[in-house]
Amino acid sequence: MPASTMMALRKMRPQRGANLESVSVPAFGPTDVLVRVRAASICGTDLHIYGWDRWSQSRIHPPMTFGHEFCGAVEKIGDEVATVRPGDFVSAEMHVNCGHCRPCRMGQPHVCQNVRIIGIDSDGCFAEFVVIPARNIWKIDPAIPEHHAAILDPLGNAVHTVLAGPIAAQNVLVTGAGPIGLMSIAVARACGCAMLFATEVNPHRRELALKMGADVALDPADPAILAKVREATEGAGVDVLLEMSGHPAAIHQGFEMLRQGGRASLLGIPKDPVTFDLVNDVIFKGATVQGIYGRKMFETWVQMTELLKHGRLNLEPLFRERMPLEKFADAFSLLESGQAGKVLFYPNGSPK
Amino acid sequence: MPASTMMALRKMRPQRGANLESVSVPAFGPTDVLVRVRAASICGTDLHIYGWDRWSQSRIHPPMTFGHEFCGAVEKIGDEVATVRPGDFVSAEMHVNCGHCRPCRMGQPHVCQNVRIIGIDSDGCFAEFVVIPARNIWKIDPAIPEHHAAILDPLGNAVHTVLAGPIAAQNVLVTGAGPIGLMSIAVARACGCAMLFATEVNPHRRELALKMGADVALDPADPAILAKVREATEGAGVDVLLEMSGHPAAIHQGFEMLRQGGRASLLGIPKDPVTFDLVNDVIFKGATVQGIYGRKMFETWVQMTELLKHGRLNLEPLFRERMPLEKFADAFSLLESGQAGKVLFYPNGSPK
Amino acid sequence: MPASTMMALRKMRPQRGANLESVSVPAFGPTDVLVRVRAASICGTDLHIYGWDRWSQSRIHPPMTFGHEFCGAVEKIGDEVATVRPGDFVSAEMHVNCGHCRPCRMGQPHVCQNVRIIGIDSDGCFAEFVVIPARNIWKIDPAIPEHHAAILDPLGNAVHTVLAGPIAAQNVLVTGAGPIGLMSIAVARACGCAMLFATEVNPHRRELALKMGADVALDPADPAILAKVREATEGAGVDVLLEMSGHPAAIHQGFEMLRQGGRASLLGIPKDPVTFDLVNDVIFKGATVQGIYGRKMFETWVQMTELLKHGRLNLEPLFRERMPLEKFADAFSLLESGQAGKVLFYPNGSPK
Amino acid sequence: MPASTMMALRKMRPQRGANLESVSVPAFGPTDVLVRVRAASICGTDLHIYGWDRWSQSRIHPPMTFGHEFCGAVEKIGDEVATVRPGDFVSAEMHVNCGHCRPCRMGQPHVCQNVRIIGIDSDGCFAEFVVIPARNIWKIDPAIPEHHAAILDPLGNAVHTVLAGPIAAQNVLVTGAGPIGLMSIAVARACGCAMLFATEVNPHRRELALKMGADVALDPADPAILAKVREATEGAGVDVLLEMSGHPAAIHQGFEMLRQGGRASLLGIPKDPVTFDLVNDVIFKGATVQGIYGRKMFETWVQMTELLKHGRLNLEPLFRERMPLEKFADAFSLLESGQAGKVLFYPNGSPK
Repeated sequence: MPASTMMALRKMRPQRGANLESVSVPAFGPTDVLVRVRAASICGTDLHIYGWDRWSQSRIHPPMTFGHEFCGAVEKIGDEVATVRPGDFVSAEMHVNCGHCRPCRMGQPHVCQNVRIIGIDSDGCFAEFVVIPARNIWKIDPAIPEHHAAILDPLGNAVHTVLAGPIAAQNVLVTGAGPIGLMSIAVARACGCAMLFATEVNPHRRELALKMGADVALDPADPAILAKVREATEGAGVDVLLEMSGHPAAIHQGFEMLRQGGRASLLGIPKDPVTFDLVNDVIFKGATVQGIYGRKMFETWVQMTELLKHGRLNLEPLFRERMPLEKFADAFSLLESGQAGKVLFYPNGSPK
Repeated sequence: MPASTMMALRKMRPQRGANLESVSVPAFGPTDVLVRVRAASICGTDLHIYGWDRWSQSRIHPPMTFGHEFCGAVEKIGDEVATVRPGDFVSAEMHVNCGHCRPCRMGQPHVCQNVRIIGIDSDGCFAEFVVIPARNIWKIDPAIPEHHAAILDPLGNAVHTVLAGPIAAQNVLVTGAGPIGLMSIAVARACGCAMLFATEVNPHRRELALKMGADVALDPADPAILAKVREATEGAGVDVLLEMSGHPAAIHQGFEMLRQGGRASLLGIPKDPVTFDLVNDVIFKGATVQGIYGRKMFETWVQMTELLKHGRLNLEPLFRERMPLEKFADAFSLLESGQAGKVLFYPNGSPK
Repeated sequence: MPASTMMALRKMRPQRGANLESVSVPAFGPTDVLVRVRAASICGTDLHIYGWDRWSQSRIHPPMTFGHEFCGAVEKIGDEVATVRPGDFVSAEMHVNCGHCRPCRMGQPHVCQNVRIIGIDSDGCFAEFVVIPARNIWKIDPAIPEHHAAILDPLGNAVHTVLAGPIAAQNVLVTGAGPIGLMSIAVARACGCAMLFATEVNPHRRELALKMGADVALDPADPAILAKVREATEGAGVDVLLEMSGHPAAIHQGFEMLRQGGRASLLGIPKDPVTFDLVNDVIFKGATVQGIYGRKMFETWVQMTELLKHGRLNLEPLFRERMPLEKFADAFSLLESGQAGKVLFYPNGSPK
Repeated sequence: MPASTMMALRKMRPQRGANLESVSVPAFGPTDVLVRVRAASICGTDLHIYGWDRWSQSRIHPPMTFGHEFCGAVEKIGDEVATVRPGDFVSAEMHVNCGHCRPCRMGQPHVCQNVRIIGIDSDGCFAEFVVIPARNIWKIDPAIPEHHAAILDPLGNAVHTVLAGPIAAQNVLVTGAGPIGLMSIAVARACGCAMLFATEVNPHRRELALKMGADVALDPADPAILAKVREATEGAGVDVLLEMSGHPAAIHQGFEMLRQGGRASLLGIPKDPVTFDLVNDVIFKGATVQGIYGRKMFETWVQMTELLKHGRLNLEPLFRERMPLEKFADAFSLLESGQAGKVLFYPNGSPK
C-alpha cells in the first residue's frame, strides 16, 4: 500500500535545474495503473529539460515531474483494468495516442497527431510512483533483466529505426554514437547486417561503438572518410544510413555515403533547419528517407522483447552509474560531460 | 533503307540555342536497334540544354544531338538482336544501366550508379534516326495512339511517382502543374485517389490541372491554403505529397500539408540546396520521403502500357503543338513562355 | 429514450429457421454504445445460421439475435465513452479484438486469436437496438448514403481483399460474383485495374458482374476459358486473383489463370478441405497467397469511406429488396434462391 | 587452353543411373563464358535425375550432362563479353530467364515464364567445363572459401526463403532438415530470429539441425509437438513457417503451428497434390503464403555474398565427402541413404 506522499524529481521553474520534492502519490482513473518505479533511466530529452533549452521552454510547463524511461511493479489498478494485475513487473509506452485521428486509424498510432507524452506533457517516472493508462503498460518477460527493462523506451527507438527496412546482409552506417546510436549498432549486428560503420566525433564513444559491435568507427573529421567507406563497399556506399546524431554535418556526410537506391532512417533531432542537397542526396539517388518517431505500438515492443529474451543484444557496454534519485545533480552533470551510456535512478531504494 | 545522312537538332556550341544539321545516320552495334523517329517530345531538360543553364554546362558535351522522348518504327537491327524486328513500333527507356553495380544487382536498375542517358550523354532522338540498345526498346501496344507513345518517358516519371506507394483512397497533393505534374494528376485519378489537390502559381496551369482531374487547384500564394487543405482532410493533411515543382517554397508548403505518417514522393528538381525543417516535416512526422528518378525497368513501362491501352488516363488536355523539326525555335520559345503542355516534333514528316 | 422491450430476429432453437421475438433492450457497460438500428443487411453467414448448416451447428449457441451488417443512430452511451455522442450516425466493426495477443500487438488486430464477433458470438443487429463497444464504432461520413452505410461490413471485406496488394494497372480475375465478389469488381475498377475478368456459374450474376464493371464475365464451364484469359494477357495469365467463391473448382481454375509471380487473395470459404497442386500453382509459380479475414482495423474503414464519399464506387446494381424485419422469411427465401444482391431490413420502420 | 575433350557425368538413357563419358568441350557463343569447374555439389534434383523418378521422366531429355551447383575459374569468354575475364573465380545463376515475359518485365526474373535451367534443360556442371551466359555469371568474393562457393545455388534458395519476409525477432519453424532446411536454419539464426524450431523425422538430421543453430529439433511424430510449440510461443504459434520438406504431413503440421497473421514460405516440393484446410490454415488465419522458386536475380546473390564474406553463416556441419567425379556411384548411394549434407565433386582434380 503506497504512502500518501512520495519523492519526485520535478522541474519547478522555467530555468535550468530541477528539485527533489515531496508530492502526493498521484491519483489514477478507472482505466489507469499505478506503478512503483524500480529503475528509471535518463534520456537526452531529460537533459534538455534539466538544462532548459529552447525546445523545453516551448514545450514543458513547470511544475511537473519528468522522466519517461522506467520499469517497476504494478502497485494498484483502476476498476476497469483487466489485463494487468498488482505485482506485475512492467514498463510502458509513454506516448499516449488518441485512437481516432487518421494516423491512429491507419495503423500508425506511433505518429498520432494528438499524442501526449508522459514525463513531457504530464507527470513522469522520476518519482516513486507513476500513473500509466492500462493500454500503454508493457509486461516484462521474466527472462529480461531489470536494467534492460529500464531502457526499453530508447532501445525501442533503436529497434524501430533499424527494423524500419531490410537490415540483414546490408552494409550499414550509424552516424552518431550516443546511447541510441550505440543500441542501434547492437540491434543491427544482432539482425545480420553486413559491414557496420559508425561515425562519431568523441573518441570514447568510438571505443564504445566498437565494443557494441561496429566493424569500423570513424572520426567524421577524417578527410579520407568517404573514400574509406566507398572502398569497403566496392564504390557503392552503404545500403542503409541510420542517422542518430541530429548534426547537420553528420546528416550531410551520411547521405553522401549512402548508395544509389539506399535507405536513410532519421532519428536524431537537429536543433535547426538543415540545408539539403535534395537533388543528389535524395532525388537522383532514388533514396528512401524515413522519419522515425517513437516506437511502433506495439510491434517494436514485441521485437525488442524477443531480441532481449533470447540474448541477442550486446548491451552491457552501455550501462554506467546506478544511483538513488537524490544524486540527480551528479547524474546530470556526468551526462552533460558528453559521456555516452545510460545512467539509472532507483527511486524506491538501492539497485541490486 | 535509310539514306546515309539525316537531319538532326544538335547542340553545336557551349551557348544558348541549337542547330538543325545534316549528319550521318548513326552506326549501330550487334546488340543495337536503329529506329526511324516518328514523333519526339520536348522535355524540360531539353529546354535547359537549349537555354544552356548551369546544369547543362556541367553535363552536356557539344556537339551532340539531344532529345530523349520519342516513338518510331524499327528500321534495322544488330546481328545479335532477337527480340525486336524491323517495322515494330517502339519507344525506349533512355536510361541505359550498367547491369553490374550494386543497385542493378539489387533489382534497382533505375538508380544504376553508372547510368548513361541517351539524348544527354550520347546522341538522342531529335533526329530522323536514333540508335537504342535492344534491351532498352519498348514495343508499343497497338491500342496506344502515336502521340501517347511519344511521351512515355515523362508519363513513366509520373506513373513511377504516383505508384511508388499506396494511392487508392488516399488524399493527394500535387505541387506543381507542369507536364509531369499534370500527368500525375491523371494517373492518381485513374488509380482511385480520394481528394486530389494541386498547387500551381500559373493560373493557366491551374485550369489545366482541373481539366486533368484535380478536385481543387490552389494558388500557393493564397494565405488560407494550409487551412483549406487541413479543413478538407479533417485536420490531418494529405496522405500523399507528389512534389513536381522543384521549387523550395512548394516543397516546404507540401511538407506542411502532409499528414503525420504520410508519404512524400519527390520528382521535381530544385536548382539549389533546400533548407528543410527536418524535425517537424520528416522526423516527428514519421514521414516517408522517396526520391524518384527515371522509370522502374520495366515495371513502370508495364504499368503505363496497361493504363494507356485500357483508356484509363485522361491525357488529351496536355497536348499542344505538333510541328516539323525545322520549327524548333518556335517550339522552344512557346515552352519557354511558361505554358504547360507537350509539344511534339515529327522529324520524318508531318503529323497525322 | 428506448422502450424497455424491442423486436429482434432470433435463432431460438438448433434447427432451420428463426423467430421474431420481443426481448429486453440490451444493457450496456461503461465503455459501450447502444445503437438504434436504421438498416441491417443480410450476409451469407446469416443464411447459414438461418439454414442451420454444419458450421452454424458448431459455432452458434441459441437463443441469440443474429445479424452483423448495419447502420444506425447512437441512442445512449456508457459513462466512459468520450468519442461518440447520442445522435451520431454510425456503423461498427463487429469483430471485437482482444488487444493483447501477438497478432493484436503486431498491428494485425483483424486476425486477433481471441476475436469475438457480434451477431455470431453475441447478440447482433437484426433488432431495434444493438450494443457495440465504443472503440468498434465507426462514424458515417455525411456524404455516404444510408444504404451504403448498411453494407460497410462486406464492402470492407472487398476493399480489404482488393487492396491487400497492388491493383492499379494489374490484370485481375474475380472468381465468384456473389455480393462481395461484385463489390470487389467495383473496387478494383475504381482503383485503376487493367483488364478485369469475372468467372461465375450463374448467368444472372454474370450480368451483374458486367454492370459492376467487369470487362469480361466468363462461365467457368466454358472449355476455352483458360485460353481466353491467356490470350487477353499475352500468354501470362492474370496478375491478381481475387477468390470470392470458396468453390474448389473455381480456386483451381483461378490459380491456373494466375501468372508466374502473381498474387492470389482468398476470401471465399470452402466447405471442405481443398486439394491443391501446390508445386505448379504456388511454389514454382512464385505466387503470393493471402488469406483475407475481416477488415483491417481501421485502415480498411478509412479506405472505403474515402472511396464512398468521393463517389468512386458503382454499387447501385447490387441492391435489391428493402423490407421490414417482419418479412424475414421472404428475405431469406429470396436469397436462398441464389440471386446475388443485398437485401436490407429496416427494424425501426420503413425505408426512405 | 582446354583440351578438345573432357570428362562429363551424363544421363545417357531413360533409366536409373549415369555414365562418365568423354565428350567435346562445349562450344560457346559471343555472349557466353566457358568455366573450368573447380567443385560441383549434388542437389536433390540430381538424385531424382540419377534415380529417374516421374518428374525426371517428364523433364529430362538424355543424353545430357547434369549438375547445376558449382564454382570454377573462367577459361574463355565470348567476343561480346566485357564484364568477366579469364581467371575470374565464379559461380552462376543456372536459371536463364527470357527477359521479355511479364514477370521478367515486372522485376521478377526468378519466376520467368520461359525459364531454361542449365543442368536440367541443357548441359550442366558435372563436367570439366560448363558454358554459362555472361549475364548469369556471379563473381566470387575472395573472402569466400571454395566449398562455400560450390553451394551458392541451394544456399540461395535458403536465403531467398528466409529473407522473403521479416525474420529478425520472429519465432520460426523450419519443417524438414535436408540440406536447404539446414542452411535456412543457419541463415535465420544469422539474421536475428527469435526462437527457432525444426521438425525432422530423421534423428541424425535433427542432430544436424541443432548444430546449425536450431533451438529445438522436434520429431514430427511426437504427439505433444503442437503443444510444445504453442507453449514456447505463449499460445500464438510461430510467426514464420519455412517449409523445406515437401511432405504433406509436415506442411499440414507447419500450418497448424503458424500463428494468426503469420508467414509461410514454401520451398519443399510435394510429389503429389496436397489437401489443405484452406479455411483454418490460410483464410481465417490471415496467413501470407509464398511460393519460393530459385533465387532473386541478383538480390539473393548479393545477400548471400554479404552473409558469407562477413562470416555470418555457420555452414561447416553441412559438408560431407569431397570426391573426384569418377566416384559418382558412391556419392549418389551415400546421399540416397538419407543422410543430409552436401557432397562435392572435383572434376578437375582433387580437393584442397
